Amino acid sequence: MMRNIAVVLSYNGEKYHGWQIQKNAVTVQETLLNAASSLFSCDVKVIGCGRTDTGVHAKKYVASIRAETEMPDERILTGLNALLPSDIAVHAVKSVALDFHPVISSVKKEYTYYIHTGSVRNPFYVGRAFFHPWQLDTDAIASAASHFVGTHDFASMRTLGTDVKSTVRTVYECEVKKEGNIISIRISADGFLYNMARTIVGTLLLVGRGKINSDDIPLILKSGDRSRAGATAPACGLYMTDVFYPAHFEIPECYIGGMFDVC
Amino acid sequence: MMRNIAVVLSYNGEKYHGWQIQKNAVTVQETLLNAASSLFSCDVKVIGCGRTDTGVHAKKYVASIRAETEMPDERILTGLNALLPSDIAVHAVKSVALDFHPVISSVKKEYTYYIHTGSVRNPFYVGRAFFHPWQLDTDAIASAASHFVGTHDFASMRTLGTDVKSTVRTVYECEVKKEGNIISIRISADGFLYNMARTIVGTLLLVGRGKINSDDIPLILKSGDRSRAGATAPACGLYMTDVFYPAHFEIPECYIGGMFDVC
Repeated sequence: MMRNIAVVLSYNGEKYHGWQIQKNAVTVQETLLNAASSLFSCDVKVIGCGRTDTGVHAKKYVASIRAETEMPDERILTGLNALLPSDIAVHAVKSVALDFHPVISSVKKEYTYYIHTGSVRNPFYVGRAFFHPWQLDTDAIASAASHFVGTHDFASMRTLGTDVKSTVRTVYECEVKKEGNIISIRISADGFLYNMARTIVGTLLLVGRGKINSDDIPLILKSGDRSRAGATAPACGLYMTDVFYPAHFEIPECYIGGMFDVC
Repeated sequence: MMRNIAVVLSYNGEKYHGWQIQKNAVTVQETLLNAASSLFSCDVKVIGCGRTDTGVHAKKYVASIRAETEMPDERILTGLNALLPSDIAVHAVKSVALDFHPVISSVKKEYTYYIHTGSVRNPFYVGRAFFHPWQLDTDAIASAASHFVGTHDFASMRTLGTDVKSTVRTVYECEVKKEGNIISIRISADGFLYNMARTIVGTLLLVGRGKINSDDIPLILKSGDRSRAGATAPACGLYMTDVFYPAHFEIPECYIGGMFDVC
């Protein structure tokens, strides 16, 4: 019997060329596919909740595995963790309705970007946060961030290269926090254009450096002009941190920690 | 003029065969020596405050560089950081008296061991904390830890292999904390025998698993019998976190964070 198995996972993206299967490069999707094929001894299909780029991490990511198997969910969890490399972990497994699709069924996604400020790099943050050794005005960044909240045309905040019907998205939250020498920028939206999270962060960095003002953000959004936004912020600071589905799918809720969570 | 330059550094030990120079293996000492030789364009001598084993980390480590150079301390800091790989960082540099020696002058050292508990591994903690998926009794561990404090013969808590005149050491603190799913064990002492910190942790793990009682610790210490102590805990969880010197040496005080420090 064909089953649709939702898996909640986290991964350290440092060694992967992103989520999506590619020729000649190791990806998270391929690694999960190989583990699942081996566990079930059959062909499987693996669908993820979004593409993440090379070096981008996930504290919480939802994928679905379609396979003909009778294996109980709990054994799938144990089996996948035994077969996966240690930089990918499965935190929950649940058989769901066949109409569940990790992308199409999602109603909200959340990314968090971490910036490490300070005069000297920290060897434990390399590849896991963006090191910014110069002064940043966190209050100005927080003020600018609020301008992204709402329904806007985000054409100025993406990298071209994927076909989308509309560049209008609704950002629900764009929250800036500073704890010690880490600045976190948490962005949730109904969907993200290609590189949208990293371009928003890159633009907020321009504000933090005093190159543009907080009030310039609405004008940049209105212009639809990518060249007026900031550079795409480096991949290493970006984490997918949550993805939301309608309650009837009963996707397991579970908190997955990671870097920058433990005191 | 020959100078004695104290450097305060941190390093992620994952890719190093410990501190001390070896044939056919990359070590932190050799990496720092190469960076300093290149910066000063002369022969230099690098002395560290202690050997750390393969895979052991340092949040704070003090080394001294002896070199004939006129370069100001601040330029040495910038120069070393430019030449060192990103998993080693220099946080402070200070020219000190010629009689300063990182080992001989030290009066206290501190190591902290991190244990990650939980049913599933965390991809961001791999190589940086010891993953212990089974239940541990933190209260029992804390109670047992207090028995290590004081002046004792630690012959039962070391690995043979180095010549030492005495196996008596004074442990000043052995503090156990639990924050979220991380248990930290911080041990400070006037000195550590080979593998002493990891053997103390391994013995505390026996207590945490209910294999021995807290009150067995004084008996094991008294016996001097290594076979009654726990296994040497894995290197990945161990961090040198501080080293102390008499005030007149004026070694820079600086707090260096790392994993498990930021909320």
